[in-house]
Amino acid sequence: MKIEIWSDVVCPWCYIGKRRLEQALEEFPHRDEVEVVYRSFELDPSAPQVPVESTVESLARKWGTDVAGARGAMARGDEVAAEIGLHFRHHDAPHAHTVDAHRLLHLAREVDLQPALKDSLLAAYFTRGESMADHDVLRKAAADVGLDQARVDEVLAGTEYADAVEADIREAAALGATGVPFYVVDRKYGISGAQPSEVFTQVLDRAWADSHPQLDVVGGADACGPDGCAI
Amino acid sequence: MKIEIWSDVVCPWCYIGKRRLEQALEEFPHRDEVEVVYRSFELDPSAPQVPVESTVESLARKWGTDVAGARGAMARGDEVAAEIGLHFRHHDAPHAHTVDAHRLLHLAREVDLQPALKDSLLAAYFTRGESMADHDVLRKAAADVGLDQARVDEVLAGTEYADAVEADIREAAALGATGVPFYVVDRKYGISGAQPSEVFTQVLDRAWADSHPQLDVVGGADACGPDGCAI
Repeated sequence: MKIEIWSDVVCPWCYIGKRRLEQALEEFPHRDEVEVVYRSFELDPSAPQVPVESTVESLARKWGTDVAGARGAMARGDEVAAEIGLHFRHHDAPHAHTVDAHRLLHLAREVDLQPALKDSLLAAYFTRGESMADHDVLRKAAADVGLDQARVDEVLAGTEYADAVEADIREAAALGATGVPFYVVDRKYGISGAQPSEVFTQVLDRAWADSHPQLDVVGGADACGPDGCAI
Repeated sequence: MKIEIWSDVVCPWCYIGKRRLEQALEEFPHRDEVEVVYRSFELDPSAPQVPVESTVESLARKWGTDVAGARGAMARGDEVAAEIGLHFRHHDAPHAHTVDAHRLLHLAREVDLQPALKDSLLAAYFTRGESMADHDVLRKAAADVGLDQARVDEVLAGTEYADAVEADIREAAALGATGVPFYVVDRKYGISGAQPSEVFTQVLDRAWADSHPQLDVVGGADACGPDGCAI
């Protein structure tokens, strides 16, 4: 079974949804046969490499409120996160592009370190308020999970995996995803948003049954067997 | 979409079922995307290479009746066949093994001549009463559909594809088929016996819908989009 997750490293509900899915997977009897793949999604493709404002300032601008108003609006996500042990401190994190983080996630996938790097990046942004466009931050997150430093430097210095990031984003649109997190199970079921873990469990059960069918036999017509034909 | 058909070349309901499936396929809008594969099944693996009795004599012996009784019991199949333009004259055909015919069907599959050879063999047995173990009969059926004569001779002279025939027979048992024809669509649906063409149509429609799913999306939970997060 394959779960593809479109998400961004600066998306609070993606972080919360990740924990909820992990909880569902922990209780899923066939968890060892589930492959999880993170797909790229950029919440703000126009965000700069060199930050000019904080996350809360950017949201205030987008929503046409003041910074205090935006900060208030962010509170509910912070509370839900706190309930599952995540202490969000990203309000004042630099608002910056995330394409380089996604390029590293594609590199990490090749060496089976993608889930670890995803966690490392989310922690850097949400709990330490670090910039996802800062190459030093990205290098540190990559080093913490054991990614090859030389390859990381090489990827960050160029545009490697930029096409894979673009392809993921186009595919999200093709699948009808307008926001993230967006989960796709066996290219058959979609889950939009940070659903409760019970919803993940239901969809996992259903997808498992689908991919392990018993033959559904229509019988009762004339046939021939070892004892002759029913004629 | 893939339809696998377990059948034997001496099985009347397999011939009738073949026509009924063909009728359903003719009306199926996605018929160009359907692959049909014939799998081997031997109704009587103990049947000899050199015939010692006719089909009707063999059935009379099996059923514990006399030849006239067996002939009478075969009449219904003959009538159903006649209704779709097939004139069965196999009562007095030699009762012989079919493994060589199945081996040639495996050869034919490699060069996309399997359905043609199947038809050619069924016609030889059912409408001309020829022996399916007679290499001259098999050579003629193969030549009629354009199979390479040298390869046909090579296969008939040895045991090539005998393992493939055995594997098909084992697989039928694993799938729960005790008689033929037995149809398996996308390894998901089974159809046992020569069902009416409407039943084939129903299963084809259902299998097509299964293999061309729209994402079935669970929505309504917190998510982030281009305009920010629902927080």
